Amino acid sequence: MQPFRKIAILGIGLIGSSLAHGVKRGKLADRLVAYDSNPANAARALELGIVDETAEYAAQAVKDADLVIFAVPIGGYADLGAAIAPHLAPGTIVSDVGSVKMAVIRDLGPSIPAGVHLVPAHPIAGTENSGPDAGFAELFDGRWAIVTPPPGTDEAATERVAALWRGLGSSVEIMEPGHHDRVLAITSHLPHLIAYTIVGTATDLEGTLQQEVIKFSASGFRDFTRIAASDPTMWRDVFLNNREAVLDVLQRFTEDLTALQRAIRWGEGEQLFDLFTRTRAIRRSIIDAKQA
Amino acid sequence: MQPFRKIAILGIGLIGSSLAHGVKRGKLADRLVAYDSNPANAARALELGIVDETAEYAAQAVKDADLVIFAVPIGGYADLGAAIAPHLAPGTIVSDVGSVKMAVIRDLGPSIPAGVHLVPAHPIAGTENSGPDAGFAELFDGRWAIVTPPPGTDEAATERVAALWRGLGSSVEIMEPGHHDRVLAITSHLPHLIAYTIVGTATDLEGTLQQEVIKFSASGFRDFTRIAASDPTMWRDVFLNNREAVLDVLQRFTEDLTALQRAIRWGEGEQLFDLFTRTRAIRRSIIDAKQA
Repeated sequence: MQPFRKIAILGIGLIGSSLAHGVKRGKLADRLVAYDSNPANAARALELGIVDETAEYAAQAVKDADLVIFAVPIGGYADLGAAIAPHLAPGTIVSDVGSVKMAVIRDLGPSIPAGVHLVPAHPIAGTENSGPDAGFAELFDGRWAIVTPPPGTDEAATERVAALWRGLGSSVEIMEPGHHDRVLAITSHLPHLIAYTIVGTATDLEGTLQQEVIKFSASGFRDFTRIAASDPTMWRDVFLNNREAVLDVLQRFTEDLTALQRAIRWGEGEQLFDLFTRTRAIRRSIIDAKQA
Repeated sequence: MQPFRKIAILGIGLIGSSLAHGVKRGKLADRLVAYDSNPANAARALELGIVDETAEYAAQAVKDADLVIFAVPIGGYADLGAAIAPHLAPGTIVSDVGSVKMAVIRDLGPSIPAGVHLVPAHPIAGTENSGPDAGFAELFDGRWAIVTPPPGTDEAATERVAALWRGLGSSVEIMEPGHHDRVLAITSHLPHLIAYTIVGTATDLEGTLQQEVIKFSASGFRDFTRIAASDPTMWRDVFLNNREAVLDVLQRFTEDLTALQRAIRWGEGEQLFDLFTRTRAIRRSIIDAKQA
């Protein structure tokens, strides 16, 4: 791909810093500038050598950039969008990495000037760690990146964003934004909600029992705590901004859990066995799809 | 420790075969015999060189054994116990590796002859794989093994079983059987139930959506599928045999989930943020306890 002239990354957390690593590795931009509402994060990125410069204000970061990437929690998009909008040159592409896509179009769409292209995206990759030191170039290798252009988006702009993600090592899928939010509600938002809940249930246990839960966590609980250690602000914003889709899958989940609870209460072993056999097959599909 | 003269392992699945590997590695028995209701499993263990002999009948396997270990799903204990009971020599120790302990005492206790010691145990270790080829000696290294002698158990017999687990690389905790079942209901049984449910909810999705769930599983869902790929028979028996404790923690979990659902519906971001921050601290405790 033709490198971008200047990429501005707004927000240097896990994903922002991994992006910076990946852009440097792939030589995907002539120049890379970082802005973060916490100046220490931007300074750290500069110190790590993963960006060329930092900006004190977001408006300053996006000046002359041909690609601007939002990598902050979704709740901050609207204000940040309004702040940079007057400083975007025609032809600039504005993208992001958020886990919800309809809300991005709702919050950024209105402030994007004519001639500027809004092409939201979402890399299906992450860890439970946060901050500029958590990033690494390999995070996106072999993973999916979903690009969700709103109807009527310039095709060349969509292709530029797709090419960026291919350059970062990912496979690209173009998807309708609302469909993205429904798929991610089940693959990502519900699992996180459940993990947060179960770890919370354990936190509320009496002192001694809680110590034992930590001690014997290797029996299953541990796997949930990793997910439930993800960034609190980012996840609060995901749930507040994908409300309908999350509540819908949560309803399905609760019905299924209630049926299982009833099967346990009445000793219906066959129903349990059948479900446990079906779920095993799903694991095999994931291994076959090389996503395990 | 003084090696056992002859250990009989009843059931050569993941745990039974890992036990065999570990006993060989640690030279913890002069002789090791395997019985499995599926003769192919026992034959495979012999072929792998992890046992010295196989027995066609369980009664034959326990002959002259000074330690007999049940490593079959809990639902099979009562029948297998009745079959071996007349063939147990006085002084023999009968133990097991099941994830539920009150049911073991209930099902095995009545058939254990006078002079034979019942010392149930539970290694906090496992993988999602099954069968004799899934076992490995390192499975128990650095993990906990919980030993749950019923009231009045011979102390020397309890110590022999504890020494076996230390020889297998584990740290030993002695625990009251009912307390074990309550702790494991939250650390292990509830997480498995939740994982099975969420993967089941996804399995029930319409065809295209299901394919996308598999494709984009790296966003959280994947971690649940590993747990939900565990052995169906074993887990059916766990839920049927730890019913009260599981239903009790499930009730707590459901209340917490309902509260969270309500917070999402009404946009109560602070409540979400507070929970997500608390759960992060639990992850840190697990890392500090070296169980991550």
